Amino acid sequence: MNIQGIEMMNLETCFSPALYEPDQHTGSIVVIIDILRATSAICTAFENGAQAIIPVSEISEAKMYKSKGYLVAAERDGYILDFADFGNSPFNFTRDRVEGRTIVYSTTNGTGIINLASSAGEVVIGSFLNITALSNWLISEKKDIVLFCSGWKNRFNLEDTICAGAIAERLISSCLFKTICDSTVAAIDLWKIAKVNLPEYIGKAAQRTRLRDKGLDDCIEFCLTADFTKKIPVIKNGILVDNIL
Amino acid sequence: MNIQGIEMMNLETCFSPALYEPDQHTGSIVVIIDILRATSAICTAFENGAQAIIPVSEISEAKMYKSKGYLVAAERDGYILDFADFGNSPFNFTRDRVEGRTIVYSTTNGTGIINLASSAGEVVIGSFLNITALSNWLISEKKDIVLFCSGWKNRFNLEDTICAGAIAERLISSCLFKTICDSTVAAIDLWKIAKVNLPEYIGKAAQRTRLRDKGLDDCIEFCLTADFTKKIPVIKNGILVDNIL
Repeated sequence: MNIQGIEMMNLETCFSPALYEPDQHTGSIVVIIDILRATSAICTAFENGAQAIIPVSEISEAKMYKSKGYLVAAERDGYILDFADFGNSPFNFTRDRVEGRTIVYSTTNGTGIINLASSAGEVVIGSFLNITALSNWLISEKKDIVLFCSGWKNRFNLEDTICAGAIAERLISSCLFKTICDSTVAAIDLWKIAKVNLPEYIGKAAQRTRLRDKGLDDCIEFCLTADFTKKIPVIKNGILVDNIL
Repeated sequence: MNIQGIEMMNLETCFSPALYEPDQHTGSIVVIIDILRATSAICTAFENGAQAIIPVSEISEAKMYKSKGYLVAAERDGYILDFADFGNSPFNFTRDRVEGRTIVYSTTNGTGIINLASSAGEVVIGSFLNITALSNWLISEKKDIVLFCSGWKNRFNLEDTICAGAIAERLISSCLFKTICDSTVAAIDLWKIAKVNLPEYIGKAAQRTRLRDKGLDDCIEFCLTADFTKKIPVIKNGILVDNIL
C-alpha cells in the first residue's frame, strides 16, 4: 500500500536475456528495451505510419518474405544484407518507405527475446523516443512491470540500462510502484548520473564504440531524443503492431 | 598501450553466474565477490588463522566431513543447519575456533561459481575486508582480470557490484588496465555514488532487507570495512587456501 492506501504494483528490471525468468512474469507487462538501435527503429517506423512489423530470426525466412513483396529490414552485426531493402537504423524507416506497409525485420537477438517474453501478459516496445507516452500508459495500467534490457550478446549493456532507469524513475515517482529489485535501484542511479549529459554518458558504452567503428553511429543522438512519438508498439501473436489500433 | 608504452591488461566485470562465460576467461585471474556474507567470512577465517576451507555443495557431504571431525560451517537461506558447528556470519570464524583448522563450508551457490571459474588461470576471493591487499596484488600480476559478482540466485545484486566497482576503480587508476566492458563502467559509477555513505547505500540492497528480516544483519557494517586483512584466499584444486602459503 502507498500513503493513499492504494495497492502498489511491482517493478523489476532485467539486464539481459540470460537473466530473464519467464515463470516469474506471467501476467506482467514486459517492456523490451534495445535502444541502439532496434526499439528506436521500431518506434520510428510506427510514428511514420508502418502498419505492422514481423520479426523473423532466419535470413532464409526474411528472403522468403522479400520474394512475396514485403519490405525487408535485415542486418547482421550492423551490416545490411544484400537482398534487404534497408538496415535497422531508425533513419531508414522514413514515412515515404513505410507508411501503410508491413515490414519484415530480421533479428536473431530480438526474436529470442520476444519468445522469452511471450509468457507475459503484454509485451511492449520501449525507447527514449516514446518514453513519456509509454511511462504514462504503464502507470495507467496498474499491472506489475518488467523492464527487459536486451543487452548485447547476453551481456549487460549501459544504454538499455540507462533507458530502463529513466522509465523506472518515472514509474517510482508515481508512487504506484514498489521495487525490491537491485537492478532497478542500480538502473535509476545510473540514469541519474547519465541524464546530466546523456550523449557524453552513452559515449562510455561499448555499443557506442562498436557503432562508431562501423560508421553506424549517426543515429545515436536521435535515439536519445525523448518523445519523438506517442506510439507504444505492442507484440500480438509474435507481430509488432501499433497499440492504438 | 598506456601513455608509458606499457601493454594494458583487460578488466571485465560479470554481474551474475548466469552471465559468466568460462571460455572467455581462460588464463585470467577471476575474483569471486559475495560480500554478504560468504567472501567476507572466508577472508575473516584466514585472517584468524584458518588453514584451509573446503567448499561442498551437498548437505550430506558436509555431514560426512563433520563425522570425520572437521569444523563445519553450514547454512541454507541464512539458517544454521542443526549438525553444523556454525553458520556463515564472519563473526563465527573467530581465532579460537578456526586457527590451524580446516573448515568445511557448505554452499550451494558458491560451489557452482567455483566450478564455473575453474577454467581461469587463478581464482581468488575478494571483499572489502581485503580490498587493498587484493587490488595491489592484482595490479602486480599483470594479467587480465574478471570481477565475478556472485549475485543472488543468479540475479544482479547491488552489494557485490559496489565492491567490484571499488576494486575496478583502483585497478583503472593504476593505468595498467583498460576496459571495454559496460558492467565495469556501471560498477565504478555505482561505487562512486555508494562510497559517499556506504552503509546507507547498501541499505537499498535487497539482501540487506533479507538479512534484516532474518536477524542476520549484525555483520553488515563489518563486511563493509576496508582492510581488515591482507590475506588473499585462493582456490587450489577446489580448496581455499591462504595465498601467502
